[in-house]
Parts: sequence; C-alpha cells; structure tokens
Amino acid sequence: MSRGDTAATHAPSRRGFLTGSAAAAGVAVGAAGGAYAAHAAQPGPATDTAGLNGARTHDFHGTHQAGVTSSPGAHGAFLAFDLPAGSVKDDLRRLMRLWTDDARRLMSGAGALADTEPELATAPAGLTVTVGWGPKAVALAGGSEAVPSWLRPLPDFSIDALEDRWSDGDLLVMIHSDDPVTVSHALRMVSKDATNLATERWRQTGFRQAYGSHPSGTTMRNLFGQVDGTANPPLASDDFAARVWIQDGWLAGGTSFVLRRIRMELDTWDQVDRIGRENAVGRTVDTGAPLTGEAEHDEPDFDAVDARGFPIISDVSHIRRARPDDPSQRIVRLAYNYDDAPRGNEPAEAGLLFGSLQADVDAQFVPIQRRLAEADLLNVWTTPVGSAVFAILPGCTEDGYLGDTLLD
Amino acid sequence: MSRGDTAATHAPSRRGFLTGSAAAAGVAVGAAGGAYAAHAAQPGPATDTAGLNGARTHDFHGTHQAGVTSSPGAHGAFLAFDLPAGSVKDDLRRLMRLWTDDARRLMSGAGALADTEPELATAPAGLTVTVGWGPKAVALAGGSEAVPSWLRPLPDFSIDALEDRWSDGDLLVMIHSDDPVTVSHALRMVSKDATNLATERWRQTGFRQAYGSHPSGTTMRNLFGQVDGTANPPLASDDFAARVWIQDGWLAGGTSFVLRRIRMELDTWDQVDRIGRENAVGRTVDTGAPLTGEAEHDEPDFDAVDARGFPIISDVSHIRRARPDDPSQRIVRLAYNYDDAPRGNEPAEAGLLFGSLQADVDAQFVPIQRRLAEADLLNVWTTPVGSAVFAILPGCTEDGYLGDTLLD
Repeated sequence: MSRGDTAATHAPSRRGFLTGSAAAAGVAVGAAGGAYAAHAAQPGPATDTAGLNGARTHDFHGTHQAGVTSSPGAHGAFLAFDLPAGSVKDDLRRLMRLWTDDARRLMSGAGALADTEPELATAPAGLTVTVGWGPKAVALAGGSEAVPSWLRPLPDFSIDALEDRWSDGDLLVMIHSDDPVTVSHALRMVSKDATNLATERWRQTGFRQAYGSHPSGTTMRNLFGQVDGTANPPLASDDFAARVWIQDGWLAGGTSFVLRRIRMELDTWDQVDRIGRENAVGRTVDTGAPLTGEAEHDEPDFDAVDARGFPIISDVSHIRRARPDDPSQRIVRLAYNYDDAPRGNEPAEAGLLFGSLQADVDAQFVPIQRRLAEADLLNVWTTPVGSAVFAILPGCTEDGYLGDTLLD
Repeated sequence: MSRGDTAATHAPSRRGFLTGSAAAAGVAVGAAGGAYAAHAAQPGPATDTAGLNGARTHDFHGTHQAGVTSSPGAHGAFLAFDLPAGSVKDDLRRLMRLWTDDARRLMSGAGALADTEPELATAPAGLTVTVGWGPKAVALAGGSEAVPSWLRPLPDFSIDALEDRWSDGDLLVMIHSDDPVTVSHALRMVSKDATNLATERWRQTGFRQAYGSHPSGTTMRNLFGQVDGTANPPLASDDFAARVWIQDGWLAGGTSFVLRRIRMELDTWDQVDRIGRENAVGRTVDTGAPLTGEAEHDEPDFDAVDARGFPIISDVSHIRRARPDDPSQRIVRLAYNYDDAPRGNEPAEAGLLFGSLQADVDAQFVPIQRRLAEADLLNVWTTPVGSAVFAILPGCTEDGYLGDTLLD
C-alpha cells in the first residue's frame, strides 16, 4: 500500500472535503485552508486569518493543474528529478500518489502526511504544486508510443551555452507561492517523499514582485528593469486556452513546459544608455509601452517608420522577433528572476528562469526561439545556460492522482 | 568630488526633501516614496500605490539607523566587504557618502544616483539599508583607540565549525524589505557603488514569512518549525532601547551586531518526535508557549516540576540556557531563514542567519553564547559555520552621512 493510500484512511474523506467549504471552485480565501487544517493531526496555532493573503488557497482538483491556471506567486521553485536505473511503472505510480497527496494537503494549508513541521504549511498564500514528466517517465508509464513528438531536448540554438546541471530531467515539480517559507517547506516535503524513488537533478528558485508591492495585475519586471510578460492573455480567456491546453489523448487538459535558464549580463547591460536599451527591446522601460504606443498593452505597430523612413520598432528588437505573424504560434510566459549569491567556487549569477507554456513545443515555442536565436538585440546581454522540456500532467479528480490517465 | 557630492547638485536639495511629505517622522505610507520618486530623473510608471505595502517607507534620517528601529522585512541580504590594502580615510569617507546617498534614495522609493534600473526601486516595501563597520574600518576612520573592546571576532566556542567564507569582514550592509526584487536591486546598487573602494567578502540572503501571510505581529518561524524571537521586546520600548543602544562616544545611537550562520540538520531533526523536539527547545511547537504556559508570551516557569519532581522545562533546553538571569545581559534577535540550493560542488544547506543586536557584545551576547555552547539540547542539530561582529553606525541627519561622527 502506498503512502498515498494510507492518507485516505487518516484524513477526512475526499468527498467530505470537497462538499465542504473548500469545494467553492477555484480560489477560496481563508476558510478553505483553515477548515482542512483543523482536521490535520497537528494543526498550527489558531489565528484569525480571514482575508489574509496567507490563507488564500487554490483548489487542487480539476481538469487542469492549478499552477497553470493561476497567477504565479512571488516565489517559484523548479525541481527536476531523475528516475533511478531499474525504475518500474509501480515506482512511478507510487511517487505520483505521494506527490498528489502532498500537493492536495499543502495547497489547502495543511501539513503533508507525516509532516514534521506542519506549522510551516499554515499560510499557503496561493501555493500551487505542479508536476510534469520528461520522456523517460512517459515511456515508463505508457510505453514509447505515449511520448509526444515534442517531448525531447530542444534543437540546438547558436546562442546556447547549455550546462547539463541546469538541463533536462525525468520529472519536474513546480512550486509557486507568495510566501518563501511556504515554498521552502513544500520543496522539502516533495524532496523527502521522492527518497528512493527519484534523485534530485537540479533545483532552481526565483522571485517576482511581492504580494502587496504593486497594484494587482502589474506585469512583473525582470532584472534588466523591463516589464516581462505583457503579451500574455488573461488566464481564463479563450486565447489562453487555445495556446496552452492539449486537447486529445492521455495529456488532454495538460500542456507542455519549457524552462530556459537565461543568464543576464547586468554589468554590460548597464553600460548601454536608455535609448539603446529601449531599442533592443522595442518597448519603453518605464511604462513598457511599445515604442509606437502610449501604454503597456497597446498593440505594437511594426510598420510605423520615423521621419527618415526607418522602422520605429527595429526589425531585430526583441518584441519584433518574439512576435509570431501566425497567431497559432503564440505561447504563455511564466518567468521568475534569479539572483544567486556566490558560493564556493561559483560566482554570482543573475538572470531569468524563463518558462513557456504551450500545447505543442515544436509548433509554438521552437519557431519563436529560432527567430530569436537568428537575430535579437537582447542576445548580446543574455545567454541560455539551461534548457528542459516537460509534459505538464492534466489535473486529477478527488479520487484520482496526477498521471492516472496513463498509469491506470 | 565624490559621486555622493554630485548627487546634491542633480537631486532635489536634502532640505527640500525633508520639508516635504517624506519628512513625516518614522514610517510614511504611500505618499512619501512617490513624492520623492517624482523628482527622480527617470521615475517609474505612474500607478495608484496609496495604501499598498510596496509604497511603505522608513525615513532614512534620525538618531538611529532605520534597519534597527523597524521590523525586519520578509527578505534580508547581508553583505560583508573588505577594504583593499592601502585604503585611506578618504576612501572610506567616499564610500560612506555613496552608500548614504544610496540608502536615502532607495529607502524613499527612488532609484539610486545614476541608477540604470530605477523601475526596480519603485516599491520599497519598507526597505532599510543599514551599515556597520568591522575593526579595520573603525581604526581607519578614527585610529585604534576608537575601536570598541568588543569589536573583534567572538571567542572560540566548542560547538563552532566556522568557515572563513562566512566570517568577519571590514564593512557590513544589511538590506531588509518585504519585496525580493527590491532587495536584489538595492544589493546591486550597493555593490556597484563599492567598486574600487571595497571588495565583497560574503553575501548571505534569507527570508521570513511574507507580508500578508500571517496576522501582523506574528513571530517568525525558523526551518525547524519553531517560533523564533518570542523574547524580543517591542521595538519602541525602554527595554529595547536599554538592550540595544550605545550611549556614549562616536557610536552613541549605534549598536553592535553579531551575525552567526547556523547550519540546521533538518534530516536528523525530523527523526526526533514532537515531545523530544519540544523538550529540546522548552516550548511547544504549535503555539510557541513555554512548556509551563498556555500562550507564546507567557513567562516560562523554570522552577516548575512535574509529578516526579523533574523540571518541566529542562535545564539544558534552549530557552533555559539562552535566558540570562541577569537582565542586563539580554539581546534582541534579528533572524532570517536560509535555504540554499545545491550549486556546483556545494550541497544544499539550510539554516538560520542568526543576528543579535546589543549595546555590548562582551557583556550581553558572549555570556549567552557561552552558556549555549556548554549545554543546549539544540546543539545536536545545529552547527555555527559563520560568525561576524560589526559596529552598527548611528543614524545621520539630512546634512550628514553614515559614519560622520568619526570621519568628520
């Protein structure tokens, strides 16, 4: 019997949980986390958390995983694991049940099963725990015919200087929350539960603006000072759905995720004047408006020319190269800044954990990346040093577990 | 002419700034940061930030540095620098003027002088930038007779496994804010301005619960799940003042700061049952109440015994050993969690950046640390791997700069 099974006997029934206050679809503030936590063996201190951002929860269950359908929190951790040689399908199923149980409990504000520090779980602050698979995991679960054609390392790009230690992997866990303590704790629970079933391959952590720092809906800024993600569609829109969701097969309701670790050369970037930097991107730095517009979300006019007949937005600017002429090629960006202190012989390194969500990596992401690799003024100051591709599993029901569409 | 001097010619006069809205003493929400930012060369986008935590500012000027008089933010960065061989007093003065100017501007929500990413400074979120000196800097500024007797490496403790790379230093900058982007940006400005004047010796970054995660005033928890800092007095209390402030000499209005990097062995800690862990600390884990009490802030009763006559709070529990019988020995804790990912050949490491504020290291901190080193059940799972002692400079006036009581 897996630990995931054991959970059901000690915890309130999943049906009971779902018919309670936490069943309110999508996002529940306050009550949900507290209600579930009150049933846990060792609840945290009783405090009035109603209305606090810390008490904000996302429902774990649904057609899609909540880490894709919700705004990313201020803190993100990305962990890749490898399956040890000799892993069998039952091992993967066991791990998926464990991680499903962890995600279900932690996202509700409860400690994980046998959590030794459940007090660190009491403020989910919008926590999501999201699981993806690399090609080896898919093949283990469903045979090589189950592996999507796009689930493989990206083609080589001339701009890449990839390092193994930030690349590839058999399994991915993404953890997002507005609270860094919550992320640290969730990360630890996920890692502990992988013991003997998978080995950590890499771990990358990043940050965005804190909850409460800027008006709701403010686009994040990267460490170059630029707004980052302006072209993303609203989360619940048809456009978002069309870009992201896989429609058929065992991955229906899932998506794909590319994570590129992009080192940014802040020192040389800072030597460029503001006009040069805005020209490189195609947007003003202060408001993020395209150079042909007034406001951040104005549509860029790539045909506009200045008095001398030159394009106002350069043909090799980042937004021109990144923007597909074919709308079916669009992606959804999910990025975090990183700023790693020097450690041992490792120098300081800052940059962007650039994540991209799309239904089909080959049809959507690769054409964009190819155009950017061919010509993008930003390439002067950026170097991709890590790259990984994962299939993000569909969501699951209260009776199911992540990956069950292929493992069952 | 130093860059600090240049600042005065391009920026609004300091008097003008201080008679404006930002002069409202202590903490100003919203208006202050925005008002000053509006005078900056390249202000960020205009947004309605009134009431947002991101707009919260601490006044830079005053008798004390604001990083000591205010609650630490969710994110903390501690940077130590060394003065290069051949540094002269004028170099130190120049650096202090630069850092003073940086702190003054950044804490108000404006970019630093010649800031190439002022948009990353628009949400101070309670930012404080606090400067301290090691013995070499004090001697450079005022001769060896100006060095307080306690300003030297701590005595050796049997529990220590100190590494040079986390220890000592000629200068300290502490950066606290609720926003990780703001901390990253401030850290970069402070580092850039040290170019040619000081070299970075170490950098340690940590985190506490996020703004909005728990009710205001909730004591932080460390990665063992324990409440951490319960015994701290209220910030503006006489007790706080008596513990912290130096009364006489060039450091009047300043204090001392000990930073200990304490590695925590989470794996072995998690093997101890809850009763064992509560016994080690002397407090319950859930509420943080002493084992003889009901609520976190109840006074522990060290004389209470159980039915068999044994002390309820063990004589070798952490709270018993840390608590001085002599009230003049008390300190103020200022701690951050750290959870560093593996990098290169460096394994993952988690623990506590344990900071201690006190008027006199030898009279207050050392006796406590000596008792803890002799016997403290927590020592089984904790190892000090870094240690540094600094004199935290007094605050300065609008016409002054940090360190001017010794440098002028």
